[in-house]
Amino acid sequence: MAAGGEARIIRIDDPDDPRILEFHAIRERDLTGRQNRFIAEGTVVLRMLAAANAGGGGFVAEKILLLENRVAGLQAELASFPADVPVYVASSTVLDAIAGFHLHRGVLALGYRSHQPHAAELLETLPDTALVVCAAGISNHDNIGSIFRNAAAFGADAVLLDETCCDPLYRKALRVSVGAVLKVPYARGGSIEANLAALVQRGFDVWALSPSGKTEMGSLSAAPRMALVTGTEGSGLPAAILDRFNTARIAQAPGLDSLNAATATGIALYLLASAQGRLQTDGTAGS
Amino acid sequence: MAAGGEARIIRIDDPDDPRILEFHAIRERDLTGRQNRFIAEGTVVLRMLAAANAGGGGFVAEKILLLENRVAGLQAELASFPADVPVYVASSTVLDAIAGFHLHRGVLALGYRSHQPHAAELLETLPDTALVVCAAGISNHDNIGSIFRNAAAFGADAVLLDETCCDPLYRKALRVSVGAVLKVPYARGGSIEANLAALVQRGFDVWALSPSGKTEMGSLSAAPRMALVTGTEGSGLPAAILDRFNTARIAQAPGLDSLNAATATGIALYLLASAQGRLQTDGTAGS
Repeated sequence: MAAGGEARIIRIDDPDDPRILEFHAIRERDLTGRQNRFIAEGTVVLRMLAAANAGGGGFVAEKILLLENRVAGLQAELASFPADVPVYVASSTVLDAIAGFHLHRGVLALGYRSHQPHAAELLETLPDTALVVCAAGISNHDNIGSIFRNAAAFGADAVLLDETCCDPLYRKALRVSVGAVLKVPYARGGSIEANLAALVQRGFDVWALSPSGKTEMGSLSAAPRMALVTGTEGSGLPAAILDRFNTARIAQAPGLDSLNAATATGIALYLLASAQGRLQTDGTAGS
Repeated sequence: MAAGGEARIIRIDDPDDPRILEFHAIRERDLTGRQNRFIAEGTVVLRMLAAANAGGGGFVAEKILLLENRVAGLQAELASFPADVPVYVASSTVLDAIAGFHLHRGVLALGYRSHQPHAAELLETLPDTALVVCAAGISNHDNIGSIFRNAAAFGADAVLLDETCCDPLYRKALRVSVGAVLKVPYARGGSIEANLAALVQRGFDVWALSPSGKTEMGSLSAAPRMALVTGTEGSGLPAAILDRFNTARIAQAPGLDSLNAATATGIALYLLASAQGRLQTDGTAGS
């Protein structure tokens, strides 16, 4: 394995080498979209990409670019990619010139998504007992990343993003998710109304999270199929959604609504997953 | 009121004017400490500073620096400060030259803390039913800010930071807390062991939050006085703490421990505050 890893290592000395052009100025490109191509950053996300590349989600690893002194410590990770994925290696000076800023972690990979399912298609694959996160209008990369991180932590089966959400494959969203974007099945597109209609049609109890929600999250009744609807931290979900669906709030100290979006979604998912009995809430933890 | 507000407005045309020197290069100074002086940034934190200035926590507002086009919209906030707090106003060009980067919000204030209580002193002020957050080794400004934001959201009575935590009055921590650092009473200093001993001595049930915790957070028994102990996202709490105190975990999907520090603290505080009956968890919410 180590020998195989060494064999495909290609040294890059010119920041303008055409083989690594996709890694150029990644911070700026982060904002422009890449037509299903994405940059994975850091060791943990690299591992998630290896797992996703081997899985059925349509994620494909294309190439890896490493700081030269990281290669020795990443042999196991490199061996988990197919042998035809090239591993480019550069000095710190060359790597920073490529990326356009100082990359102290020194671990980048390029991947693409070969197939992105529609919401309806994704919902058809879910089991009879399921938990889905349905997000509307989340344009902040941190918040999108956090939604995926929390969805993975509490075992949500899928995430549906409406067309006004930002791309979870943006470098920063992917990093904040700790690679969960590559793990939790998701669909992106269409209106929030269409996504909710698709959920209702498939027997989901829909709960819209809002500071003015009628039911406290910790006291709502569990159902086999549940969906949590979450909007932006500022303006929240549209009134038309809050009027039509069950609404839930997270109890807080009087006079305040001070939770950030990621924390609110985390608490709500913890409570829904607990209510559905999908978390090990009793007894003693494993180590 | 509006007349009083107008009277103390002082125009600044020279970025090196000695009256606003404390606002120079605030991004760099953020990392060096200011001996109990702090920068409040943004309208919401400005409001919290006005409230803190009028309260008993020892926070004093010294001066305000605004982008010229923000003055008209902030009359109510300016009127809530004492008349002897000067309000400096500058153009966008001058303001950016002062701060050292582009300040798109255009709202800054300088304050100081006249008195910082010791942990023991602070604990003496707490009621018979109390919830305290006790943090160890939190060096990340975002995470410190989030702890305060969550503490405020769930009505915690106090935060104890050990000597290895970063200063919550750092500009970024204060901003992430949405000003809660100016609202939730806190002490900073001493060892985590000393802080925990002070809590035990005053009848607090101490629960250390850890992925390997023995009891699931949602099933622990409430007590009138409870303390949540939280460490860093990476290495967590020292083994000596986990061995000596009750430990609690947040149930997650099998095989994962993927919560970020802010979300984990938020979930734990929600559950503790709910168990203590200090949140309105039943019935219908107000609007």
